Amino acid sequence: MITVLRIGHRINRDKRITTHVALVARAFGADKIIITTKDEKIKENITSICKKFGGNFQIETGADPKKIIKQWNGTIIHLTMYGDNLKKSISKIDKNDDLLIIVGAEKVPPYFYENADFNISVGNQPHSEVAALAIFLDRYLNGKWLTEQFNGKIEIIPSNKRKKVLSKKEKSD
Amino acid sequence: MITVLRIGHRINRDKRITTHVALVARAFGADKIIITTKDEKIKENITSICKKFGGNFQIETGADPKKIIKQWNGTIIHLTMYGDNLKKSISKIDKNDDLLIIVGAEKVPPYFYENADFNISVGNQPHSEVAALAIFLDRYLNGKWLTEQFNGKIEIIPSNKRKKVLSKKEKSD
Repeated sequence: MITVLRIGHRINRDKRITTHVALVARAFGADKIIITTKDEKIKENITSICKKFGGNFQIETGADPKKIIKQWNGTIIHLTMYGDNLKKSISKIDKNDDLLIIVGAEKVPPYFYENADFNISVGNQPHSEVAALAIFLDRYLNGKWLTEQFNGKIEIIPSNKRKKVLSKKEKSD
Repeated sequence: MITVLRIGHRINRDKRITTHVALVARAFGADKIIITTKDEKIKENITSICKKFGGNFQIETGADPKKIIKQWNGTIIHLTMYGDNLKKSISKIDKNDDLLIIVGAEKVPPYFYENADFNISVGNQPHSEVAALAIFLDRYLNGKWLTEQFNGKIEIIPSNKRKKVLSKKEKSD
């Protein structure tokens, strides 16, 4: 089980970035996202996408991050540009453990650095928690996203020239 | 030379996502971003980050995308969830060519699908142009971001437990 814990989400300011974090979590192989701020709209939005595109991804909003961290039975990692080398850190994670991946918005309080088993950086340049999560999951799960089947009502057929979308009972462009 | 062409940027709605796209472009090995909408604020923001963290990344805003595409002397790709398989597509790109990578916000007009040499998907699930760009550049440049030196005024020292930042003449936490 891989759970992403999105902390510091500000409903107006972060809605689009947090939506991207949630969709990346789903597409790249996580099982669940917990957004610590209560936000029904983002929950509806992600749930609706999951219904269409398939899979068992879960979303929860409004939760006390410290409580989750204290009760977590598994490995806790925090993705940050200040963290340790990605490859080295991944090699130390027990792959049998349930994984909690903390992804912050803007400035993250010291508590999270201190309580993570691993603070991990995807490069030490400023970029994006969206990209960091995608690359982390890609490496940690050895590119599982490349072959994962979601069996949704809607399926995209890869194409070099046009949109090809397969619905449950019909093909259309 | 790798240039990212960000189309459809809406100043208020997309400012944070476009900022992440620009920072990912820089961190993962592109040389330049062109944002077709004129936006001085995002330009200042990215330029300021480049000054601190180093490298030669360029940003331009306010440009006609069709003109750029028509005059492009090299390969044009468009990242889209409807596109063709990533690995297969990358193997077909001539690596000596200058590369223009089109990254859309929301709905992309057919013109861009039709005028790209390659429409490429990073998986066919909905997720994020930020993640798609990071994974594309990671694969296309064989993880160049892992070893690239930016030689900035500020350097982050990887650490599992705390923020370690090296400034030009002093070390501080």
